[in-house]
Amino acid sequence: MSRKLHLNAFLMGVGHHEAAWRHPRTDPLRLTDVRHFQNLAQIAERGRLDSVFFADGLALQGDVRHNALGGLEPLTLLSALAAVTDHVGLIATVSTTYNEPFHVARRFASLDHISGGRAGWNIVTSAGEAEAHNFGIERPAHRDRYERAAEFLEVATRLWDSWEDDAVVGDRDAGIYADIAKIHQVDHAGAHFRVKGPLNIQRPPQGRPLLVQAGSSDDGRDFAARHAEAVFTAQQTLEEGQEFYADIKARAARYGRPPENVVILPGISPILGGTEREALRLEKELEDLIIPAYGVAQLSNILGVDLSGHPLDEPLPHVPVETEGQQSRLKLVTDLARREGLSLRELIARLAGGRGHRVLAGTPEQIADQIQEWFENGAADGFNIMPPVLPSGLEDFVDHVVPELQARGLFRHEYEGRTLRENYGLPRPASRYASGPAGEIAGGNAPENADGTVAVAS
Amino acid sequence: MSRKLHLNAFLMGVGHHEAAWRHPRTDPLRLTDVRHFQNLAQIAERGRLDSVFFADGLALQGDVRHNALGGLEPLTLLSALAAVTDHVGLIATVSTTYNEPFHVARRFASLDHISGGRAGWNIVTSAGEAEAHNFGIERPAHRDRYERAAEFLEVATRLWDSWEDDAVVGDRDAGIYADIAKIHQVDHAGAHFRVKGPLNIQRPPQGRPLLVQAGSSDDGRDFAARHAEAVFTAQQTLEEGQEFYADIKARAARYGRPPENVVILPGISPILGGTEREALRLEKELEDLIIPAYGVAQLSNILGVDLSGHPLDEPLPHVPVETEGQQSRLKLVTDLARREGLSLRELIARLAGGRGHRVLAGTPEQIADQIQEWFENGAADGFNIMPPVLPSGLEDFVDHVVPELQARGLFRHEYEGRTLRENYGLPRPASRYASGPAGEIAGGNAPENADGTVAVAS
Ligand SMILES: Cc1cc2nc3c(=O)[nH]c(=O)nc-3n(C[C@H](O)[C@H](O)[C@H](O)COP(=O)(O)O)c2cc1C
Ligand SMILES: Cc1cc2nc3c(=O)[nH]c(=O)nc-3n(C[C@H](O)[C@H](O)[C@H](O)COP(=O)(O)O)c2cc1C
Repeated sequence: MSRKLHLNAFLMGVGHHEAAWRHPRTDPLRLTDVRHFQNLAQIAERGRLDSVFFADGLALQGDVRHNALGGLEPLTLLSALAAVTDHVGLIATVSTTYNEPFHVARRFASLDHISGGRAGWNIVTSAGEAEAHNFGIERPAHRDRYERAAEFLEVATRLWDSWEDDAVVGDRDAGIYADIAKIHQVDHAGAHFRVKGPLNIQRPPQGRPLLVQAGSSDDGRDFAARHAEAVFTAQQTLEEGQEFYADIKARAARYGRPPENVVILPGISPILGGTEREALRLEKELEDLIIPAYGVAQLSNILGVDLSGHPLDEPLPHVPVETEGQQSRLKLVTDLARREGLSLRELIARLAGGRGHRVLAGTPEQIADQIQEWFENGAADGFNIMPPVLPSGLEDFVDHVVPELQARGLFRHEYEGRTLRENYGLPRPASRYASGPAGEIAGGNAPENADGTVAVAS
Repeated sequence: MSRKLHLNAFLMGVGHHEAAWRHPRTDPLRLTDVRHFQNLAQIAERGRLDSVFFADGLALQGDVRHNALGGLEPLTLLSALAAVTDHVGLIATVSTTYNEPFHVARRFASLDHISGGRAGWNIVTSAGEAEAHNFGIERPAHRDRYERAAEFLEVATRLWDSWEDDAVVGDRDAGIYADIAKIHQVDHAGAHFRVKGPLNIQRPPQGRPLLVQAGSSDDGRDFAARHAEAVFTAQQTLEEGQEFYADIKARAARYGRPPENVVILPGISPILGGTEREALRLEKELEDLIIPAYGVAQLSNILGVDLSGHPLDEPLPHVPVETEGQQSRLKLVTDLARREGLSLRELIARLAGGRGHRVLAGTPEQIADQIQEWFENGAADGFNIMPPVLPSGLEDFVDHVVPELQARGLFRHEYEGRTLRENYGLPRPASRYASGPAGEIAGGNAPENADGTVAVAS
């Protein structure tokens, strides 16, 4: 069987282009309309895409005067999408910095049950300062955020494992609902969390949701290599893509993981047209709708400096390296500006489409060529598709690029399985507490109270 | 227009009777099956019930060896129910003790958008000790939990109000998405929370979700009278029901609230049969399936004492008043045992059906008589219906009791409106920040940053 692409639809409001909401192909008032997103998930499923994905932030970030910001909370939204789809995977972003592992493990387990094994978690550490201020603290340092994330994940996986797969018996006659020898306290006590467990829901269909990661700093890459099963990333050139791909796979191998168990998905925003001219026209239309003040605010946000007084037609000023925010995004932007000698105005236009992700305007064949080039040259296992306008940008991709990729033998015609893991070709993890041949017995876990019950509250 | 009943379906696993999972009318393996709950919500909607409701706890509490415990997280579940219903209200329990107001406000706002204005929040303070141990702390004192709840609600309502109703403009030509003069920071700094705001989602259809409360201790009643728009309660006798009803309404009036804006819903578990004999047979079948060891563990849990060594056929021993757990539940149980002179075994059987709520076995007419008696004699504005077995217990109620109540002119034939508030006959709150005729301007809120943007992250 030949290696196949994996495709994720990154769904953002009415499109990834920052001027999407002003374009006649979108309706800016649908940001909180569940039917808009249900339609998008169904389009993705019609195209046999592996999954849909929602980014997330815990503050109103960016200038809402000039852009359609503020959407539905991703996990809440995804169960409404689960209800109207059967195969497409459902990936939500949840921060480890401003959450508790018990809540997060439980909600993903619930979504995994509700969707029949289609849940995925994009694990982020939340780089913004505004987010901290909605939770009564100052933003923890970059390194501390990643340390907390690692411990968070340790607790969450223990909680998902706390009910072994065959813990529920349901024997009415004997009066035995669950075999409590197969339900385990997790008894975690660490630097950030103390969690007794077990989880209050049985093990989800996938065992654990698919774990996704999107940080590209050194800490972020290390975290991805240890824990992530899919990695979203912004890479501008084939060479950068190859470097990142090789680095993550090598790091994973160093952690003893099969490199193919980490699926690498660079982002692309395809601006599609039936002809190249049509594609370029759509690109131009969007560019003409850009509001410079908005772009300046966005860029100031990414770079951690106030650019509002800087002349638009001069090059980006020198930017000090800010180490506590989004390290990898900052580097990508400053590298891009320097490499191509862009003015502030030009840089804003370049970022407006994909905030640092690759924007490609062209015909379905041209987009397919680009996808194939990266896929066959060690830069990608698939792509994170970021339609510039929604829904039409996703429809165009599904109706025109997907058939082209299928015709080239690069993409599935039918889903391989029912779960997200099956479609991504990733193994289902055994419970660490399982004593059968598939598992191992973890020490230090007192499974029951003295009276034989589990976690009876006083 | 005559006063009408309000009916809420309290949905719990495969039924409220603790032996429901062993009865042939249920399938104990459907606890994590979303279709089971989607079916129940659709049955409730067919019966024109105001709402469905899910209780919640943040630990695996109770003896899972002998009962079907551990279900889907309510808020995650409710959006999957929203997707397959149009009118029925959707009420989830969320604890204020182990959550952050920003997350909770945001998720209820999301559910309210997703459901077109059908979200309700049962505000609980989490009485169990096991819950605290999943969040790294010891259970806070009863009074402290209620103090935190009051501040939590203050922050949550500010967040829901932070976007005025008409903040989103969506003017593409002018490039104005939102009128930022109508989006407000909340700038809360209190004993438990520091939250800057605004919320990162626009104001939900109901303005705020319906606020529900279920604690009956003195602190609980006070909280209900100040904040709740609907109150769930367990009352055994008409006299107790009348006392509670009058007390809550009087307290509400003392807080300057119209008493009719607090809807009081005592719980009943109707064991239905076409004849009284049939109903009593179902009751007996369920009683015969009770596992005494389970009941003893449950009762020990409620009372905060270990009863496992106590002889089943002797009266309940003296129980010290435990003030930090569920005060009202404890009192209800000890009063019941004393009033009726019950042995431990008899008390367990009495509690098995409704954990202290009223259990009524009878024909649809007999159940309707009881409902009417309380409704017309100052003990209830409606009821929290707790079917002993699911789905059949809800089907029986909807198909036989509801038509009887409709025939008596006590219950609606069609929904009054599209939102939960409209169906409960409750007003839609204005944003406290609204400067128009409907609102008032709250002080101390700096709506914008100096540069005119809202909450731009650095
Ligand atoms: C495709 C993609 C999606 C991302 N989505 C989110 C998101 O939804 N929320 C978030 O806080 N960060 C998101 N990020 C940012 C990263 O997760 C990470 O927090 C950020 O890059 C800072 O980490 P770093 O310094 O390790 O790069 C995303 C990044 C990429 C490439
Ligand atoms: C119908 C009903 C439903 C309840 N549901 C929950 C629940 O889901 N979760 C919870 O922690 N407590 C629940 N409770 C308990 C109360 O909310 C409250 O926390 C408890 O009674 C202790 O508070 P009190 O001492 O004020 O009575 C419920 C109570 C009633 C009457």
